[in-house]
Formats: sequence, structure tokens, C-alpha cells
Amino acid sequence: MNNHIPHADLASHANLIDREYCERLDISDRLAECRKQFVLPAGVAYFDGMSLGALPKIASDRVAAVIESQWGEGLVRSWNTAGWIEMPQRIGGKIAPLLGADADEVVVADSTSVNLFKLLVAALRLRPDRRVIVIESSNFPTDIYIARGVEELHPGVEVKIVPGGQVDHALDDKVAVVMLTHVDFKTAEIHNMAKITARARDAGAIVLWDLSHSTGAVPLDLHGCDADLAVGCGYKYLNGGPGAPAFMFVARHHQEQIDQPITAWMGHAKPFDFDLNYTPAQGVKRLLSGTPMIVSLAAMEAGLDIWNQVDLHSVREKSIAMSELFVRIVAQRSTDPQLKLASPSDPKRRGGHLAFQHPQGYAVMQALIDRGVIGDFRDPDLMRFGFAPLYLRFADVWTAANALVEVVETNAWDHPRFRERAAVT
Amino acid sequence: MNNHIPHADLASHANLIDREYCERLDISDRLAECRKQFVLPAGVAYFDGMSLGALPKIASDRVAAVIESQWGEGLVRSWNTAGWIEMPQRIGGKIAPLLGADADEVVVADSTSVNLFKLLVAALRLRPDRRVIVIESSNFPTDIYIARGVEELHPGVEVKIVPGGQVDHALDDKVAVVMLTHVDFKTAEIHNMAKITARARDAGAIVLWDLSHSTGAVPLDLHGCDADLAVGCGYKYLNGGPGAPAFMFVARHHQEQIDQPITAWMGHAKPFDFDLNYTPAQGVKRLLSGTPMIVSLAAMEAGLDIWNQVDLHSVREKSIAMSELFVRIVAQRSTDPQLKLASPSDPKRRGGHLAFQHPQGYAVMQALIDRGVIGDFRDPDLMRFGFAPLYLRFADVWTAANALVEVVETNAWDHPRFRERAAVT
Repeated sequence: MNNHIPHADLASHANLIDREYCERLDISDRLAECRKQFVLPAGVAYFDGMSLGALPKIASDRVAAVIESQWGEGLVRSWNTAGWIEMPQRIGGKIAPLLGADADEVVVADSTSVNLFKLLVAALRLRPDRRVIVIESSNFPTDIYIARGVEELHPGVEVKIVPGGQVDHALDDKVAVVMLTHVDFKTAEIHNMAKITARARDAGAIVLWDLSHSTGAVPLDLHGCDADLAVGCGYKYLNGGPGAPAFMFVARHHQEQIDQPITAWMGHAKPFDFDLNYTPAQGVKRLLSGTPMIVSLAAMEAGLDIWNQVDLHSVREKSIAMSELFVRIVAQRSTDPQLKLASPSDPKRRGGHLAFQHPQGYAVMQALIDRGVIGDFRDPDLMRFGFAPLYLRFADVWTAANALVEVVETNAWDHPRFRERAAVT
Repeated sequence: MNNHIPHADLASHANLIDREYCERLDISDRLAECRKQFVLPAGVAYFDGMSLGALPKIASDRVAAVIESQWGEGLVRSWNTAGWIEMPQRIGGKIAPLLGADADEVVVADSTSVNLFKLLVAALRLRPDRRVIVIESSNFPTDIYIARGVEELHPGVEVKIVPGGQVDHALDDKVAVVMLTHVDFKTAEIHNMAKITARARDAGAIVLWDLSHSTGAVPLDLHGCDADLAVGCGYKYLNGGPGAPAFMFVARHHQEQIDQPITAWMGHAKPFDFDLNYTPAQGVKRLLSGTPMIVSLAAMEAGLDIWNQVDLHSVREKSIAMSELFVRIVAQRSTDPQLKLASPSDPKRRGGHLAFQHPQGYAVMQALIDRGVIGDFRDPDLMRFGFAPLYLRFADVWTAANALVEVVETNAWDHPRFRERAAVT
């Protein structure tokens, strides 16, 4: 039995969708039980899991144990006795199944930005006779800032920013690295990882994927794509907590050559020998720099222990069913031609969220948040709604889509308090 | 009334020091109450606060509030409503008084290693016509690894490693940066910050101080020394928790020019405009790269809120009184000529810990840990004992020094289980 209404059924659902219909979908949802493992505030329909994932119930106890028992009682001994020193690799190993990678190809450290920096420099070093970094203008802007920072450090290296989907035309024998955001942070459009990686490889380039909006949203197959390098975020779909550490993937066949620039003790083969010469550790451990942030890592591990109980393909099926339901409700009920889907209409071509355009998108989103429907806004006019199947119900989809239609149809957004910009939008 | 026995009194204390004498010192210790703000396991005398500081009692509740209320209930809204976005600067501002710096000159981010990397590259950019980085061989090895990593990124830049205390002779018009560990991680010897900074400045170089073993151990006066740049660690004397984020200091007069290489959204003037071009924020905010690790930051802030209640000069006085007491007990009671003080004998010339040499130092330390006296060991033969006046008692000093003498005098270290090396020593 399916845990959701198949896409085809949905499209043929000729009658007006209502809350009762959505609640029936929840009854047959095999992932429904998973929601019980999360804290979700009353009166909130949370569609911003692609920005900050919800809190796993076990996270608080896990962190309290690390603080009270391991730090408070174990003190410095816990680096050994509580396995702190192994956490970056242990948690990396728990992310690996979501990536289609092996446990020893993934490690957790630092932020996505710092990891992009490390792996972009490392990628250039894998292709020392080539000097071009190709990146798309639709990449997450930080990825572009990082590339510019790397360019400034390497005289002769050039960052070529190409329009989305135009990487093919930029590939030549000067290209060292192609650095791409796998799922577009605005529209959720998915890059064809297998195809791009294969073409880049044929052209002799390394591909560095940013999987921040992909991990936990869509099944990934880094091995099947013969991927080289990747980074990703811990605090979105992985539910690792605010500012959770990020991860790095390095394919096994690159691990002996990989040479990252922030060489520090935790990446040393023998960190506690305090040797004056740096000798990189074997494997992904050499990607580490400073001391791992244990308290944040403990929160993050709680999120992954939920992920390791579920089948990512079932999660993806439910995600598609939810986003298709959302689109359908809006299509059935909205009469405002200014409200437009900005994501691909084919659900297979988009990741875990939907983007809708509206000229008053910022104020519309504030009015929604005021009603307990939390999505987010990206300039100039995009409202994003993220589908986190581990904790969202089809009834929540009803609530959110129906509220969106209502706010737009009634001009409920048209109020000064909904136009005022906050520091983080 | 003094909160400790003055050094001169201690030296003239002709009688054999005993536990009762030390307990009397605790009675007149004005910082004694502070210990109540920490969790300390029963039966442990904790002398490894220079490696991992003890747990502030409030840390657990603070972190639980951030997790359960701010993350669980507030969700993504807490970036604004709970002030998450301001945490790196807010906590930096709480470190500033310990550095002799202004609140807007300090920011918390990433690890010490990553921060050293950022500021070392930034320092080179402040002196573009100079290409030499001077560093001492006695620096913490990670500092040397980072310098080597920066050297590899900058063809033409040369790292000169000089013996401890020999920086003067290396200063010429080619030196861009002098990068020094202020308090030696092995011997605790303090560099003369005012003198070295002045000489480097006269020679046209920038000084980048690593204050990891200094902050919270000795009063610092970055303004008085006209210091340029500094980094430091959050998890040692600051009691910020395992792997707590680190900090960066940039003197105000450098802030407009400072240009760090890991350019990413949190250092952008307008991070949520998602502009394709990077425009650095004003002030120390431009030193940020990725998303701040909120859970670890919350634990760290708890530690600083204790620091902000005490006078650092009183803390230093007690630290000196404790370490002098330790030295005296060992001198009075040990007959083993192989047990030698490896730190400066003048307490004003050493930071917050003592190092003792012994050919069997590793096994001696394991035997001490087995008895509940926790210090640590650094190859080849150094035992380190850290003095954290916020939570240590003079009676603990008695316990530790007396145990050290006993283990050495009775050869209690001479057992196979004390010789086996752990992953983290």
C-alpha cells in the first residue's frame, strides 16, 4: 500500500480538495508516526524546514547528557571515554546513506561556507594545470562569494559565472572545477547530477556539489554518479539544529590526493604528537581543521538518528505528494493571476520545496506567518514552502495552501506591519 | 583583605605546608563562592581547565532553553526574535573586557584554527609589499600548520620559524606578520606582548597573537599594547564547553581595511539580499563566514556570564597564589631529582598552568588521573596542571601536589595500565 496519494490520482482528482480529503491522506500515510519524534509548536504549520529543520524530541536529552554527564562529570576525559574525538566521522557515517556514499567518505566539520572553501581549493589542487572555476549565477550566493575568495587567493585562477543550465558550454580544457548548487535554493530546480558530472569528467574537470538543499530532500546517488566532491548543510532537512555543523564528501578515489588548505591539528595523522610538521591523516579525517564543536554535534546526531530509521525513497514520495497537493489546492482556489508557481511544475525536476511568485510576496509571507503558516521569502518576490515529510501532515499542506490563497484573495497582506523587514527574512 | 596568601608570605612560610594550612587559605578566598556556579564531580581535583574548562551550572539550562523554546517553539523565527543572528557579536562583546579591548573589536566564530587562517591571510593583505611570516617553533603546532597552509597558498610568501624568544632578530623590512602564541602551551611562559608588538610595529610588521592559553588566565591589555590582531579559544579558561567556538580580535584602526579570505554570507553587509557580489559588512562582522553554531554558542555564553561577574586581576592573584603553593608543596616534599619544574619560576612570567618534567611523565599523569587528580600530559615528558581560580580551591592544590609527590616517591606510576596511550592524551 502506498503511503500517499500517487501523483496521477491527484491530477485526476476532479473535485475541489478540502481539509477532510487531506486528513484522509494522513490516515494512510506510512510516515505519519514519524511526526511524533519531533517537537512542533501548537497552531503552527511549519513549511520552513529547508531553512531550519524542526526539533527532534531526543535532541534535548542528548545534548543535556553531553553537557551534564560527559562535560560536567567526564570533563576532559570524555574526548576518549565518550568518543567525542570520533564524532565528526561517526556523524559523517550517518549522513552517508542519504548521499549514496560510504560511511568513510563523509565527515562533519565547520560550516558549509568553510567546507566549500576547503574543497574548492582542494579541487583546484587536483587539477593544477587548469585555472578556471565554473559556477552558475543561480548558485547560492555564498557559493559564489567563496569562489571569488578562492579566486583572489590564486592569481591566474578565474571564476566564470554562467547562467543556470549553461555549464555545458563553458566546459573546455581550462576548466579545473565546476561548482554547483544541486537543488536551486530559490526555485528548487534539480540539476542533473549524473549528466553534469559525466560531462565535466569527460572534459577533465572536477565537480564540487553543494547539497545543502538536497540532503534529506531528494535521494542522492553520489556513487552512481561517480561524484568527486560535495558539501552540505546540517540544519535544513537533516534537522541538526540552528547553525549545525556541515559535512564534506570526498570520493574514495580522491582521498589519498586530497589536499585542503586549512591544515590544523584535527586533520593531522597524529594530532597529539604535537609534531612541528603537518602530516595529513588518512581518509576524510584530513579535512578537519580545529576542535569539533561537540555540543552542536550532539544535537545534530539526534536528527540523523531519526533519518537512519526511514527510507529516503518513501520520504521523497511523500514530499512529492505533499507539494503536488499544495500546487493543486492553489490552482483550484486562487483567482489572482499574480500568484505564480516559480518552481518546475514537474515534481521530479524539483527538490523539497515550492517557490511561488507574488509582487507582494514579502508582505504575503508575513501575513501567513502571522497566521501560523511559516514559510520564508527570498528577494525579489519569492515565497518558499518547504516539505519535510518526517514531520509534516497532509492536513498541514491544506492549512498552508488554503491560507496562502486566502491572504492573496482577501488582500490580507496589505497592512504596514506585514511590510516591515526583519533582520533575517 | 586579600583573597589569597601573598607570594612573599608563601615564600617565607618555613613550616611544612599541610592540608589544614591550604583549607585556611580557602576560608579567606574572596573568589571561593564562585565555585558554586560550576559542576565539579565528587572525588576529582580538576587541573585541566587549560584544556577543557569545567561546566558552569547555568549552561545546561541555557542550552535547554535554546533548544526547547527557541529552536523547538520559535523555529526559524528565533534568528530574529531570540537574537541568534547577533550572538557572534554579543558574545564577542562579553570576551572583550578580558582582552582589554572594546566590545565591537571582538567576534566569535568557527574554530581557533580557522580564525588563525582568516586573520593570517588578512594580515598579509595589510602588508602587501612584504612576504615573510615569522613564527616561533614553540608556538602551538596548529599555528605552525596554519602558517604553512597559508604559505602554500601564497607563492612568494615564506614562513620563517625561529626559536622561542628570537623574534627580534628576525624582524626586517620583509616581515609582514609575526604570529605568536602569547602563553606557551607547554611551559606557560608569557611573551612580553607590549614589547614584541612595539618592536614589530617599529619594523612595520603586523602581530597576530594566539591568546588561547591567555584568555581568562592572565589579564590582557590589547589596547594598551596597541595590538593589531588576535585569536583565542572558547573552551579553555573561558569554560565555553567542548569545542566551543573561538574568537577574533581586530583593532578598530584595522577594521576598515581588514580583508579575510573565507567570504560568505554572514560576513556580507546585507546577507539576506542574496546579492551576487560580496560586500563586506562594517566592523568585525565581516570576519564571519558561515552560519553561527547557535547551540554551542549558547553553552559558551553561560561561561562568559560568570566571567563578567569577576575581576580578572583578582583571578590572576589567586592563580599565582595557587601555582606558587603547588610549587612549594612539591619543593618541600619531593626528593626525586627527576621531577623538575619546567615553567618559569617567577609566577609573573608564566600563565595559568604549571608544567613539570619527569621521564615517566605520561605514566605519572595516568596514575594521578586514576586517583582523581586530572591534569594532562604533553610529549615528551611534561605534565601540565592548570589553575582555574573560578572553581579550584587551595585544598585542591594540596590534593594535587601531594598526590604528585606521592606517585613519584612511591613509584605508583610503574604499572602497565598507566603506560597505555589513549587517543587523546
